[in-house]
Amino acid sequence: MVSVAILGATGYTALELIKILLRHPGAKITALTTRQEGQPPIHTIHQSLTGRLDLKCEDLSPAEVARRAEVVFCCLPHVASMEAVPTLLAGGAKVIDLSADYRLKDAAVYEKWYGHKHSDAARLATTVYGLPELFAERIPGQQLIANPGCYTSASILALAPLLHAGLIEPKGIVIDAKSGVSGAGRTPKLNTLFSECNEAMSAYSVGNRHRHLPEIEQVLGEATGAGVEAIFTPHLVPMDRGIIATIYARLSRPATDAELLEAARKYYAGKPFVRVVEHLPSTKDSAHTNFCDITVRSARGQAIVLSCLDNLIKGAAGVAVQNFNLLCGFPETTALL
Amino acid sequence: MVSVAILGATGYTALELIKILLRHPGAKITALTTRQEGQPPIHTIHQSLTGRLDLKCEDLSPAEVARRAEVVFCCLPHVASMEAVPTLLAGGAKVIDLSADYRLKDAAVYEKWYGHKHSDAARLATTVYGLPELFAERIPGQQLIANPGCYTSASILALAPLLHAGLIEPKGIVIDAKSGVSGAGRTPKLNTLFSECNEAMSAYSVGNRHRHLPEIEQVLGEATGAGVEAIFTPHLVPMDRGIIATIYARLSRPATDAELLEAARKYYAGKPFVRVVEHLPSTKDSAHTNFCDITVRSARGQAIVLSCLDNLIKGAAGVAVQNFNLLCGFPETTALL
Amino acid sequence: MVSVAILGATGYTALELIKILLRHPGAKITALTTRQEGQPPIHTIHQSLTGRLDLKCEDLSPAEVARRAEVVFCCLPHVASMEAVPTLLAGGAKVIDLSADYRLKDAAVYEKWYGHKHSDAARLATTVYGLPELFAERIPGQQLIANPGCYTSASILALAPLLHAGLIEPKGIVIDAKSGVSGAGRTPKLNTLFSECNEAMSAYSVGNRHRHLPEIEQVLGEATGAGVEAIFTPHLVPMDRGIIATIYARLSRPATDAELLEAARKYYAGKPFVRVVEHLPSTKDSAHTNFCDITVRSARGQAIVLSCLDNLIKGAAGVAVQNFNLLCGFPETTALL
Amino acid sequence: MVSVAILGATGYTALELIKILLRHPGAKITALTTRQEGQPPIHTIHQSLTGRLDLKCEDLSPAEVARRAEVVFCCLPHVASMEAVPTLLAGGAKVIDLSADYRLKDAAVYEKWYGHKHSDAARLATTVYGLPELFAERIPGQQLIANPGCYTSASILALAPLLHAGLIEPKGIVIDAKSGVSGAGRTPKLNTLFSECNEAMSAYSVGNRHRHLPEIEQVLGEATGAGVEAIFTPHLVPMDRGIIATIYARLSRPATDAELLEAARKYYAGKPFVRVVEHLPSTKDSAHTNFCDITVRSARGQAIVLSCLDNLIKGAAGVAVQNFNLLCGFPETTALL
Repeated sequence: MVSVAILGATGYTALELIKILLRHPGAKITALTTRQEGQPPIHTIHQSLTGRLDLKCEDLSPAEVARRAEVVFCCLPHVASMEAVPTLLAGGAKVIDLSADYRLKDAAVYEKWYGHKHSDAARLATTVYGLPELFAERIPGQQLIANPGCYTSASILALAPLLHAGLIEPKGIVIDAKSGVSGAGRTPKLNTLFSECNEAMSAYSVGNRHRHLPEIEQVLGEATGAGVEAIFTPHLVPMDRGIIATIYARLSRPATDAELLEAARKYYAGKPFVRVVEHLPSTKDSAHTNFCDITVRSARGQAIVLSCLDNLIKGAAGVAVQNFNLLCGFPETTALL
Repeated sequence: MVSVAILGATGYTALELIKILLRHPGAKITALTTRQEGQPPIHTIHQSLTGRLDLKCEDLSPAEVARRAEVVFCCLPHVASMEAVPTLLAGGAKVIDLSADYRLKDAAVYEKWYGHKHSDAARLATTVYGLPELFAERIPGQQLIANPGCYTSASILALAPLLHAGLIEPKGIVIDAKSGVSGAGRTPKLNTLFSECNEAMSAYSVGNRHRHLPEIEQVLGEATGAGVEAIFTPHLVPMDRGIIATIYARLSRPATDAELLEAARKYYAGKPFVRVVEHLPSTKDSAHTNFCDITVRSARGQAIVLSCLDNLIKGAAGVAVQNFNLLCGFPETTALL
Repeated sequence: MVSVAILGATGYTALELIKILLRHPGAKITALTTRQEGQPPIHTIHQSLTGRLDLKCEDLSPAEVARRAEVVFCCLPHVASMEAVPTLLAGGAKVIDLSADYRLKDAAVYEKWYGHKHSDAARLATTVYGLPELFAERIPGQQLIANPGCYTSASILALAPLLHAGLIEPKGIVIDAKSGVSGAGRTPKLNTLFSECNEAMSAYSVGNRHRHLPEIEQVLGEATGAGVEAIFTPHLVPMDRGIIATIYARLSRPATDAELLEAARKYYAGKPFVRVVEHLPSTKDSAHTNFCDITVRSARGQAIVLSCLDNLIKGAAGVAVQNFNLLCGFPETTALL
Repeated sequence: MVSVAILGATGYTALELIKILLRHPGAKITALTTRQEGQPPIHTIHQSLTGRLDLKCEDLSPAEVARRAEVVFCCLPHVASMEAVPTLLAGGAKVIDLSADYRLKDAAVYEKWYGHKHSDAARLATTVYGLPELFAERIPGQQLIANPGCYTSASILALAPLLHAGLIEPKGIVIDAKSGVSGAGRTPKLNTLFSECNEAMSAYSVGNRHRHLPEIEQVLGEATGAGVEAIFTPHLVPMDRGIIATIYARLSRPATDAELLEAARKYYAGKPFVRVVEHLPSTKDSAHTNFCDITVRSARGQAIVLSCLDNLIKGAAGVAVQNFNLLCGFPETTALL
């Protein structure tokens, strides 16, 4: 039984993580943290956990967390995460970091996009990016895994096979992505109020201003060797969860829909959580699951790739447990089917 | 052309009020207030007003507002409202107060339910409660109108006809009310986040803890002479707007559905905004309108009254303009159909 | 490994059942039926099952189904169910019937509410009603289980403890219930179109016209000996899943909230799927789970009981698997946590 | 007072049309048609019209309709529309056709996309396309107006200014459009059930299979002289109404956001229903209005244009009344603000 802790247990990702871990036969949650005072029992923060987990959320130091758990899921915001991770690692814990702090390889890029100097830059170059469909073999034996962003996973999983097969051009890609509102977090803000989001769809960070863009380009470059340049436009959809990315890329050569699908199928052969489908996927098909559903069509010399996943599961907590399984030697699908 | 001002222009009710007043041939908006700094143009607060109204939101004193407008719609929260109203009235403005501050006749009851001593208690006894279907004749000539609460209007309009006709018992009434989320206001709070409200229905203030209850009982007593005692349970529904109140009351004597409907029809004869219907109304039928739709059925000696209205229109901004029309001598339906 | 079949595999309940059974270590799905032609693979009917279950939906006779499966979940509509069940039983299969056909003990009551003569009336008196929290000990060894209705379970689980303890009067109960739209099934109808239901709340079957009422009264009578008489009003809520029942019952004697809660806690001691909670539950807390969350408050001599469950899980497919577990000797919570 | 009829009064567009016309001081609805038997009063089909319009829906011949009304809004499906229009025109009525039947200039293109030979092809070349922002001066004096499609209007209004100014390339345009579900009509179908659409986002007609594409390309060509070639991907969003089109086009030359916005502002100077905005518009800003909100940003040599409108109003019923106003000599904004 592996002891695990969750740093920053009050958000939506942490809630999903707890629910998945409660089904995991080889994991035991031993610590939950929050900065809230008074050591609130977790079920007072997440009512749905009533009767499921009898733990308090404590304001623990990273050192104390490392004493209590072999593996730590860090659900802190960026910056807060890189302030805690070195101590966690020094204390001997393995860390799966769900923030953006260890995803970018280049501290200057991090600083440009996150507006904050990286305080643990030396570790960036060697940290493994935890997208198991691309990098599964690198994960066992690591001390620190950078868990991918939600838009990022949807985009990378859609594009990697076609780039890998040389079927699409790496420049001029358009990623039009749509996400449920839970991706925006649980901190009360005007723009995520029900009465603002409901019956409303809008784009945000238009004009390549979203932080998942450099992550997408970096990882696709690393995985396929292509110098990807994309335009990325995220949108907010009036639903709880789910991302659909509609991606447009110029074909390098004429290709039928069947060829494009076959390239994707081949790329993901043996990968349990990517489903290359012939139908047009709905976000609802993969909601509450760790699946990413992908299909592709072509028109006028462009490939149109559709990619759906649950932003909280395959886009965050689910892939984190997938990484946990690989890290600790459990079967990859444990607690995830 | 009557000059009007809106105090507290940043909320949902104020937005609806502005939209209705822009269609009103006899009203001109001359001032909008907010405590926000920097005199933001109203369209930066409510994007939907872009190109519709070229006014800034200013941090004006009540005295200044009274100089700029003949009629003031006060959309401030309770307590803030009673701090502004006396000055507005002293400045010669007529006031339609959308807060709860002047609805209850008894300062002690106010203090009990709102936890705050009333600073303008002398005015309570004489302020007219602006529910035109019951008190239209009292409105012309007033200086101050207390605009009703949303749950209150839905409940009162449903019960008044049957109480008036002596068809139901005034004690033991159950009001099970369901409201869209816009009723909870525009201030960011955890419980009104999209990801909390969506795909969720819950009750709140259970056990007669909601402030609209004393208002319902007082006004029904005033209108019908009955000593009403109710249990009132509000619920939050994952939709923007609309209230449905499902109300249970013991029949005083056996009565058919037809008799009950006829009593309601008779009571509202000539009233343009109450529709006594034979079908089961949906909140959607009256959404974005100033109508209240009412029907009634009976079973096992109880009347089951259904009442639907738009909480922001007939429950707030629409009835405010209805009061404005009566106050200023416009036809009651002006700008409301 | 118990072989199981699902009759009527195209609806929402069948989909949930399949998802739960895929997680069940002791069950193997061996047959799925539909009247659709062409033996469609199940993933073409439920896209979310792509890659999860490689089975066709066949137009099989009940006799053939009984040959293929030891336990049959019957998800047919009423009437169709009682036409299939005798053959299934004769073929040696155990049957968990999710329709209403075997829930009522009295064929005359069935005929009155369902407008159809019961063709298998002899079996009604002895069929066990599969609400495990009340009747768990009767389930092992049965050949046929009548799986409860969704509104029914929410209502019965809320009322049974207080009736059992003699804390509330059995007459004059008001059950105001609200359900997500999935409860209305998957057959295309005007009133369940997105554009009709969304941003809309309405009541239906008002005036004790809903078929779950006689079921509620019968089972509560059977469980507690009380002659229950209720008014039951169902509503449609713009959400996928979840029921909240707000129930009003006269207290037999003055009782504090704490006493009422304690009676419920005591009644459900050791029952894994009813959570007696102190907070006000949201349907979202139990969505996608087999839990029923219950709390109670009092006001003016009435108990106000709130009861939430997922209509497709605890209200249908989940409790069906709970019955399956009891029937086949698996731990009650298998595949359900 | 102009007498108007609505052919096909049971759909969502017809409902919006009726609501707008009830506010129009110069129009009087004199006939409504349906193929439903029994002459149902309109308020039994659209409950929200109770007390608003006392007319029956009759199964009238086009000839009879032409006798009753000077202007006919034809809300029939395609094919049905072209079967009725010639008789309406022969009877002396002016027709605003909301179907697709008279939008395409070329009968062969119509046949290719709609799978049906055009029975009134001679009229195609001369029929005016009723997008007033582009063709207002052609509308007065016409007998027949082809009312534009919803996706079409959103796309054309976004692209026309930039094409007109030569700022973007006409080839390789990507239109990623998202619509509320009301656009799919009121006929019960599985894919528009609440439980299918809610909490779900998906694309459809992927790979340039949607019928609004040839309309977009034809009208943009006609308006700007450019040979437009686009990829058009529509999506279904879990909301009632609203379209947001996110459009990507290569810049012909480097241009700042300010220049792009200025080109749009200039193009729509004096047009009351297009708002060129600097903020990122939400569909909610224009919901229930006749506005189209447009903004533009650039990145990596591409213009990203955002265009929002209400699919039932500016995308159908509202623009129809705008056309009616121009046709009959009313101010363009009558009944639409």
